[in-house]
Amino acid sequence: MYNVTVPEFKRSLLTLKGILVKAGAFLAEKKIEDSVLLNARLALDQFSFVKQVQITCDNAKGTAGRLAGVELPKMEDNEETLKALEERIDKTIAFLDTLQPEQFEGSEEREIPIYFMPGKMLYGLEYLNTMGLANFYFHLTTAYSILRHNGMNIGKADYMGQVEFHDEKK
Amino acid sequence: MYNVTVPEFKRSLLTLKGILVKAGAFLAEKKIEDSVLLNARLALDQFSFVKQVQITCDNAKGTAGRLAGVELPKMEDNEETLKALEERIDKTIAFLDTLQPEQFEGSEEREIPIYFMPGKMLYGLEYLNTMGLANFYFHLTTAYSILRHNGMNIGKADYMGQVEFHDEKK
Repeated sequence: MYNVTVPEFKRSLLTLKGILVKAGAFLAEKKIEDSVLLNARLALDQFSFVKQVQITCDNAKGTAGRLAGVELPKMEDNEETLKALEERIDKTIAFLDTLQPEQFEGSEEREIPIYFMPGKMLYGLEYLNTMGLANFYFHLTTAYSILRHNGMNIGKADYMGQVEFHDEKK
Repeated sequence: MYNVTVPEFKRSLLTLKGILVKAGAFLAEKKIEDSVLLNARLALDQFSFVKQVQITCDNAKGTAGRLAGVELPKMEDNEETLKALEERIDKTIAFLDTLQPEQFEGSEEREIPIYFMPGKMLYGLEYLNTMGLANFYFHLTTAYSILRHNGMNIGKADYMGQVEFHDEKK
């Protein structure tokens, strides 16, 4: 449970941070305020870019933290710049770094209360699949898509981030 | 490894199928040909909707099949209608249904050759995280985003699909 959450959340968040740095350069080149991007969205009734990044961080924090059974650090949703969003990512990664693999032992079976549905819960494995990973990647991809749709020159490799391939042994 | 792939891929593919059915009704109401949607994209240099759905299916098939160590069924990329894409989903689910949990035992350590990088491989767990889940959700979310961006009335609940919550025990 640790292996499919903490290391991959960290890797993906660092990838997202790299994309935010590129987005900053893109905005600077076009002399566009951060707020324009932070308020961009793909549909009028959809969360804006800033919210997509905040929720991506919260999904990483919440999924890993709840499975580990620890209290979640509170983070204010008050970012108004790309730099502030980068710091949110740093804070989220710092929290992930406090979690140890042992804390995830048996978490497949742990009861995870669903905070927006009082009285309801999912078992850890169900929670990981349906709420955790599915939501994390949903908001990460949507943040990326908003940038793509607005003409930023990024590609799939920017989303995939750093992957260390090995040589085949045979 | 089975538990974070096969059941969740199936659940998500059924969710995607439900979205395709809704998309069919949306197009019918507006008297728009399937081909218009199948060629829609969020950016000119991005894969179109039909390709996003095909790759979502292929990621489910490839990730689960490679981890299980079985040969992958070949599927032609020749869908021209939403109905044909629904059938592709059905075929993918039928393949997933042939996989047994025992086949995934030890797959964390299995060497998975990377077909587009001859001579390179990832260990099963690395492959699952970086290529498998990250790609599956990427293309699933992008298909959804193309529909959202084109004004289709779907929301996060359509992406999340069916989740069976339990009553808290305390």
